[in-house]
Amino acid sequence: MAAVEALIERHQDTLARALTALADRDYWSPYPEFPKAYGENAPAEGKAAFEARLGTAFELPGHPTTGELVAGEASPYGIELGIGYPRVEADALLAAARAAAPTWGAASPAERAAVCLEILARINARSHEFAQAVMHTTGQAYGMAFQAGGPHAQDRALEAVAYAYAEQTRLPERAGWTKPQGKRDPLKLIKDSVVVPRGTALVIGCNTFPTWNGYPGLFASLATGNPVVVKPHPRAVLPLALTVLIAREVLAEAGFDPNTVTLAAEHDREGISKTLALHPDVKIIDYTGSTEFGDWLEENARQALVYTEKAGVNTVVIDSTDDYKGMLNNLAFALSLYTGQMCTTPQNLLIPRTGVATDQGEKSYDQVVTDLAAAIEGLLGDDARAAAVLGAVVNPGVLQRSAAAAGGEYGELALAPRVVESAEFPGATIRTPALIKVEAHKPDDRAVFLSECFGPVFFAVAVDNTADAVELLGRTVREQGAMTATGYTTSPEVERQLVRACLDGGVSLSLNLTGGVYPNQTAAFSDLHGTGANPAANAAYTDAAFVASRFRVVQVRRPA
Amino acid sequence: MAAVEALIERHQDTLARALTALADRDYWSPYPEFPKAYGENAPAEGKAAFEARLGTAFELPGHPTTGELVAGEASPYGIELGIGYPRVEADALLAAARAAAPTWGAASPAERAAVCLEILARINARSHEFAQAVMHTTGQAYGMAFQAGGPHAQDRALEAVAYAYAEQTRLPERAGWTKPQGKRDPLKLIKDSVVVPRGTALVIGCNTFPTWNGYPGLFASLATGNPVVVKPHPRAVLPLALTVLIAREVLAEAGFDPNTVTLAAEHDREGISKTLALHPDVKIIDYTGSTEFGDWLEENARQALVYTEKAGVNTVVIDSTDDYKGMLNNLAFALSLYTGQMCTTPQNLLIPRTGVATDQGEKSYDQVVTDLAAAIEGLLGDDARAAAVLGAVVNPGVLQRSAAAAGGEYGELALAPRVVESAEFPGATIRTPALIKVEAHKPDDRAVFLSECFGPVFFAVAVDNTADAVELLGRTVREQGAMTATGYTTSPEVERQLVRACLDGGVSLSLNLTGGVYPNQTAAFSDLHGTGANPAANAAYTDAAFVASRFRVVQVRRPA
Repeated sequence: MAAVEALIERHQDTLARALTALADRDYWSPYPEFPKAYGENAPAEGKAAFEARLGTAFELPGHPTTGELVAGEASPYGIELGIGYPRVEADALLAAARAAAPTWGAASPAERAAVCLEILARINARSHEFAQAVMHTTGQAYGMAFQAGGPHAQDRALEAVAYAYAEQTRLPERAGWTKPQGKRDPLKLIKDSVVVPRGTALVIGCNTFPTWNGYPGLFASLATGNPVVVKPHPRAVLPLALTVLIAREVLAEAGFDPNTVTLAAEHDREGISKTLALHPDVKIIDYTGSTEFGDWLEENARQALVYTEKAGVNTVVIDSTDDYKGMLNNLAFALSLYTGQMCTTPQNLLIPRTGVATDQGEKSYDQVVTDLAAAIEGLLGDDARAAAVLGAVVNPGVLQRSAAAAGGEYGELALAPRVVESAEFPGATIRTPALIKVEAHKPDDRAVFLSECFGPVFFAVAVDNTADAVELLGRTVREQGAMTATGYTTSPEVERQLVRACLDGGVSLSLNLTGGVYPNQTAAFSDLHGTGANPAANAAYTDAAFVASRFRVVQVRRPA
Repeated sequence: MAAVEALIERHQDTLARALTALADRDYWSPYPEFPKAYGENAPAEGKAAFEARLGTAFELPGHPTTGELVAGEASPYGIELGIGYPRVEADALLAAARAAAPTWGAASPAERAAVCLEILARINARSHEFAQAVMHTTGQAYGMAFQAGGPHAQDRALEAVAYAYAEQTRLPERAGWTKPQGKRDPLKLIKDSVVVPRGTALVIGCNTFPTWNGYPGLFASLATGNPVVVKPHPRAVLPLALTVLIAREVLAEAGFDPNTVTLAAEHDREGISKTLALHPDVKIIDYTGSTEFGDWLEENARQALVYTEKAGVNTVVIDSTDDYKGMLNNLAFALSLYTGQMCTTPQNLLIPRTGVATDQGEKSYDQVVTDLAAAIEGLLGDDARAAAVLGAVVNPGVLQRSAAAAGGEYGELALAPRVVESAEFPGATIRTPALIKVEAHKPDDRAVFLSECFGPVFFAVAVDNTADAVELLGRTVREQGAMTATGYTTSPEVERQLVRACLDGGVSLSLNLTGGVYPNQTAAFSDLHGTGANPAANAAYTDAAFVASRFRVVQVRRPA
């Protein structure tokens, strides 16, 4: 394994720095988030690499396949992808994973970490190609597809690899044990602790963040020695197919079976996820997507550890602020970014009828709503800029909800959505947000805003007062789940109440964000994504609990 | 919380030393295992304290109760216990836990660890009283009841507390985050990470090791901030009732609600375990006992994390040895200790028909069986010594199996069980082991020895050769589960095969034990108990995975 030794040497400093970052929790990343850091020609090269794949068969040498191709991706920007991926049978795929397992499982945690870091280094070098792939499957604007789909996803992957390494090396590989026996000779044993992977892992990707949401589970399972079957969303295959391709290249070069990482592409609703998820070989499942299927997995995939991120309803409580403009701009951007299609995007803005104290005087509920609508309009007034913030609508379901909002179906419009034209992509489907006025205690309204309305539909909820808002925040988290909670207040007492409600509900809280950090963004090595403490997700990216059960430890003891 | 501060100071050195021990994995314990270390009068005082409880009501001040008492313990030594414990309704118990939860949950990990260590210090000081309680509920001989039920159980508890502290403090309570923005000012946030307990924990104790098997879950859940309901086995209440009593005293003195730890005593088969296990409040369950109920919990208690230790079949492979006498004596003691009523006791001894190479020449299958039977007879020839090793038969099921073995029901007897009389306890039920000769490939025999036969019934299994033995070991672990595996060999190649089979099966292996360490014993801070990688248990005492999911982390971030 000379190749692996070289990889360990190449990446040991990055791993060591990542382990420090896990404990320090300050900002850190080895993967530059500025597109220009990758060289002048990188964007064009990435685009060329992407375009070269359009209308072709995606080759995965040595990968199981029936010989057929599956293709079903449709770019939200209106271009044809037409990429065909190898069709697979579940049994053949799992047999290949089973065959690959022993060699990968026998590698040391350090060897596996080094292989993972090499995979990430090569993914990182191709970040502009990934940006194209993410953009044309998710609808994210290029800048976001680059950052969130590239370096930020790589950060989350590295974080998982570092945690996996840390967890696997908590027990020394060999330890002596000497127990005194008074005047007699001590008892002496030598004890070896060997990490044993759990079994084949399944990663079920989502449509909106195939890499960002897919990487933590993929790399946590891989780094702990398990073969990984990657089942991409049928509409967002390319980013994960590229990932699998690169992983297989690195694995093969390092002397491992490339089938340690495989791709389970399928036509929409073909059902391979269910077949794989129930197979006795599959011992770990990571899933991001609908509550319905997440609940099904938790209920039925009993032979596996199941990590799910499902739907939720994210809430903002607006009590008071000393930077009214900053608050409005921050919220306008947070709601607009990627057309509200982030699991972390706030949906409900709770605004007291009693008014909001600001640095620009007391603002009524109506005034706050009007000003927020204006801030959104200001942000998105220019079509080119709007397109760069909004990206495109990921799928027909989101478009349908935008249309329903526009038709007044959800309530009184404070801000109507509009169609944005893209000069670059005439076929792109782009919509600005709808802002709807609703009342907290009107049953018809509650039925609407208290369930997830994924996409660019936001509710300005009139609450009686701040206490009412805090109560509603807590209830929403407990009953609907939430990935994020957000508060604006200048009152220490209200801040305490918000913190209390979020601790009780089990959701992380962003307070008084008015600058360049938004409620819907989390940073690896610093923020946990999700908590696992409310119905929206049963795990978090990434803490020790996310990786600690993906392997077991077997000990061998013998007399010294 | 001045009281808590004092506890932190009192126990901080022990905690620090325990954290070091977790990483070093050498022998360490702060709780002396020699009875005499507790003072000359301690045994008599412990006995007096135990006897004072006989026939009385066990008082738990402030504990929920219907006012009725439950009593159902029967000493395997034939004495009447007649202790009445407060009867409780599940709803009242869980309401009390709910009321206690916020204060305990708001304590810091350091405060909780200190309270747990004070509980353990007081339990430790009363180890002789616990020894009586364990002896007269489990049937363990006094010496074993003292060690395994006292200091060794306390070691496992401390280990869980230390892991819980380590896991909860992996993220700093507060961290700054500064992200450079090129020429612009950096983004700066302050981020707080708050440990949030998961919810009420349920510990379901077993008949044979109420403290040793009960403490890891109890203290792991408690130290991570969860209120704990302790449901003892109806035949082994006293050791856990004493534990709950002491825990409540310490909690109250430290300013917490004593109902943070409660007792759910019940009459046999009353069913409170099921009621509690399915209650939505209960978020964590630790269980030791039958496979049937363990599987039921895993299948049905879907709202909870479920940690189970169930039945298994433990195997010894005898290939060769350079210390034949040492091997026989070690096995004789391992099989005899506590009448084989340990989940770690070997059940099947696989002996090749091709013979066993030893320092005393080649031994045939028959010779090894004869010599092992003789070693057991030698160990247990004297009734007083036999009673001190065997203890007593824990319950009628074990007695029935011993009788069935004596009647030849399981196969040809190489060693017949005999009745041992206790001078001290004329009513004690004491039996020596039965050793049965069976054949690995005879279907009738396989049907017998390939399922758990809990108690003093052991099978000398004739296998074709060592390879056959290794194969059968692996199959037994995979299909039946196992808590331990044991091998004797002088061949490096056979050793490799044994290690491989145990890694693949997911069971820890003891090799060539011929001295004062036995296959059925594990030491806290060094050996894991169980692996969680085979059907016998889904978790191990104690690794990071055992505690890491018992709490979640909620973050609060705000501009710096």
